[in-house]
Amino acid sequence: MEVPNFLIERSHQVDEALDRLLPGADQRPQSIHQAMRYSTFAGGKRLRPALCLEAGKVAGAADQELIPVACAIEMIHTYSLIHDDLPALDNDDLRRGQLTVHKKFGEAIAILAGDALLTRAFQILSGFDCIPLYSERRLAAMREIACAVGTVNGMIGGQVADLEAEGETISADLLQYIHSSKTGALIRASVRAGAVMGDVSETEIEALTSYGTRIGLAFQIVDDILDRVSSREVLGKTPGKDRSRKKATFPALFGLDDSRRKARSLVDEALRSLEPFGEKADHLRELARFFVERAA
Amino acid sequence: MEVPNFLIERSHQVDEALDRLLPGADQRPQSIHQAMRYSTFAGGKRLRPALCLEAGKVAGAADQELIPVACAIEMIHTYSLIHDDLPALDNDDLRRGQLTVHKKFGEAIAILAGDALLTRAFQILSGFDCIPLYSERRLAAMREIACAVGTVNGMIGGQVADLEAEGETISADLLQYIHSSKTGALIRASVRAGAVMGDVSETEIEALTSYGTRIGLAFQIVDDILDRVSSREVLGKTPGKDRSRKKATFPALFGLDDSRRKARSLVDEALRSLEPFGEKADHLRELARFFVERAA
Repeated sequence: MEVPNFLIERSHQVDEALDRLLPGADQRPQSIHQAMRYSTFAGGKRLRPALCLEAGKVAGAADQELIPVACAIEMIHTYSLIHDDLPALDNDDLRRGQLTVHKKFGEAIAILAGDALLTRAFQILSGFDCIPLYSERRLAAMREIACAVGTVNGMIGGQVADLEAEGETISADLLQYIHSSKTGALIRASVRAGAVMGDVSETEIEALTSYGTRIGLAFQIVDDILDRVSSREVLGKTPGKDRSRKKATFPALFGLDDSRRKARSLVDEALRSLEPFGEKADHLRELARFFVERAA
Repeated sequence: MEVPNFLIERSHQVDEALDRLLPGADQRPQSIHQAMRYSTFAGGKRLRPALCLEAGKVAGAADQELIPVACAIEMIHTYSLIHDDLPALDNDDLRRGQLTVHKKFGEAIAILAGDALLTRAFQILSGFDCIPLYSERRLAAMREIACAVGTVNGMIGGQVADLEAEGETISADLLQYIHSSKTGALIRASVRAGAVMGDVSETEIEALTSYGTRIGLAFQIVDDILDRVSSREVLGKTPGKDRSRKKATFPALFGLDDSRRKARSLVDEALRSLEPFGEKADHLRELARFFVERAA
């Protein structure tokens, strides 16, 4: 599936803002700012920011208010990749076809660059460079994001459970917990953070949450499938690592065919959740399809 | 100098709140929550929370509103110690007389526990478990804290400059930059975050900022002196490491006597900044003296 046009536009919009919101590469101390920029501009598709922006648009929020939130989410995503790649964790040398941050800048700078991106995200969310117009809404978006990347049903919790499960035989329940926390929570929060920046009813938030939860899980299943079937060239990182490390994955537990079926049915459910929004949710629909068709 | 009574009371108050605000040690995944608690309850004196609480009291803010902010500051301080101790950074085995987190829980958990404490701090600041009553003030406090621990004149920037300067001959200017960013910024922000939670005039904020800046620098000078003159028993960590690593320190650049004089004169200046506040700033005065008399 081709990358949808609006997603390309959104990613330009986000890249431009990220460039503005990150400290300059020539600012002291330079090494850390270079590392932050190296990792942020390594070619991500900006799916999470796009989800935030499009969910926010459905909720009637202005792009101008949404952009800092979307950028904060991408910075947090990038920090998680840097730390995940470290020798003490996944020990990866390549990410998106480039050297990982610790390979390029050394381990100390990689640890601190991750810390710095997480910190920068919260600087931005707290409005350090813009008038915090709608404080209540901004705090609500921040709550969504901060909770999604913590230890309790959040990203770090998922990473820890994933580490602990390496080499173990795990249940479908634990796999679902790992996936929904490690990657699912931030994807869902991207949608919800956008939504709470606008005006939405409780029912609409629930519908968008249901959408976000389902594409989040579908995304991770697809990622697992790609790790199994792709080449290094397509993947931009070493494929088959999940298997060689005996990582808990959907294909390992259910096989490739059932995993593909599961991803597709999750996307169908996600699309059904969007029904009440009519045409204005069309971009969210395209994103859902794009999430899963990478693994067709 | 004995620990002032009010500081002991404040530290109990903060410990109680930290216990409530951190996930339980039995919550899944347990290892990370145990590591977060192990490091947080390793015997810190809670100086930064005390500064926040006492500056907030001077500004007329309620303890109830200040406590989450004070705890968030302590969590951020603790995260910075965990990451600073890592093999890729300072490679320390002991901290406050105990095994460092990576020695006790392994490097992966130490990295993630640091990430998790930083994240938890912002969950708390965003009001995840309390009604965000004064959103404007809370956002202002968060801005102070988030900016103080970033890369631009903040904690991470100071850590990076410190790493880069190891083994180099550095100027007094660079040393001042390192100290004022690495430890000074969070100490100053602790004071300012407390102050902005209350009602203060621009002049009062400036006076408190001047106080915070000076005791922040004094604190680091004293820390450098203690590293030089203390035994392992008193310090709770390996002494003399700055010297063996050729770290940039005040005693290395100016000698012990001049460093002590500098610390004392900074505290005198800090005390002068408090004059407009009269008696209600007495605890801040005691804290300033306590900061520096450790190194008498």
